[in-house]
Amino acid sequence: MAHRLLAERVRAGDTVIDATAGNGHDTLFLAELVGDTGRVHAYDVQSSAIRATEVRLESVGYKDRVELHHASHTDIAEREEPIQAAIFNLGYLPGSDKQIITQADSTLEAVQSALSRLMSGGIVLLVVYVGHAGGEKEAEALERYARTLSTHEYLVLKYEYINPDNRPPYILAIEKK
Amino acid sequence: MAHRLLAERVRAGDTVIDATAGNGHDTLFLAELVGDTGRVHAYDVQSSAIRATEVRLESVGYKDRVELHHASHTDIAEREEPIQAAIFNLGYLPGSDKQIITQADSTLEAVQSALSRLMSGGIVLLVVYVGHAGGEKEAEALERYARTLSTHEYLVLKYEYINPDNRPPYILAIEKK
Repeated sequence: MAHRLLAERVRAGDTVIDATAGNGHDTLFLAELVGDTGRVHAYDVQSSAIRATEVRLESVGYKDRVELHHASHTDIAEREEPIQAAIFNLGYLPGSDKQIITQADSTLEAVQSALSRLMSGGIVLLVVYVGHAGGEKEAEALERYARTLSTHEYLVLKYEYINPDNRPPYILAIEKK
Repeated sequence: MAHRLLAERVRAGDTVIDATAGNGHDTLFLAELVGDTGRVHAYDVQSSAIRATEVRLESVGYKDRVELHHASHTDIAEREEPIQAAIFNLGYLPGSDKQIITQADSTLEAVQSALSRLMSGGIVLLVVYVGHAGGEKEAEALERYARTLSTHEYLVLKYEYINPDNRPPYILAIEKK
């Protein structure tokens, strides 16, 4: 679903952000969308994530399309060029230490930075997990913030599976008008 | 959004249902999707809705693609052929008597009938309004029911704008696996 929303809005030549590179799945998908002339900036605080993403990109020859930042996604504020999209895949890195999770405060700061750089017609996607310790707190903070965004400037759409056995992530999609 | 979801799944030649013809907007959209070889069954209890829908269809030459049923959507149970999609646009008929609203019990019965005829890969869309008297009750009943649907057989996705000034409708999309 998140990829479908990105594919609808990201075109060749666009600049986009993967705020949580993780194992590189979203980075790779974005690199496909922006093509040879576009640019993906991918962030992760964990060196294992940056390495995994690099390997994945090299395997398909997309390394040149991506700038890897071994840094917190709060560093999104340090650049200024407008972006067409950003994705935040929250929670912990699959297959790694579940103690290292994204945190409400820094996530919120990074989301605000991404929105400040978002172009009209662009989208910021938050893939929100509530199944791990700390997940509920982060989810609440993000949803509270998203509800305050002006309807004149943004549409915020929540996509949620409501009949699952366990608790899957849901998506908050913030679209700039 | 509802139309986008329908367009993704409905193809020429399909049989589909507009459970609440209303002013005919959804009926017309479905008639476009199913084409000359498909069939739309449109239901409404209000004769003004059936007339408005008929006029709209005739104006674009789609009358032959649609069977209008001046009847409650609970009559969906009286037919048996499989359907690819059904849409329920709940609440009251725009521009008419706001006392005549869809009711939780009959809506739930009609939704169950539609699901029993739904083909694999098909979708039932509920456009749920909560801004009018009785809306909350119907919404709660539908969402409670949707949450009970087996994840082996259905995916239920809720699409909801969360930053509006007023309370727009939200969508429950029930997709048959």
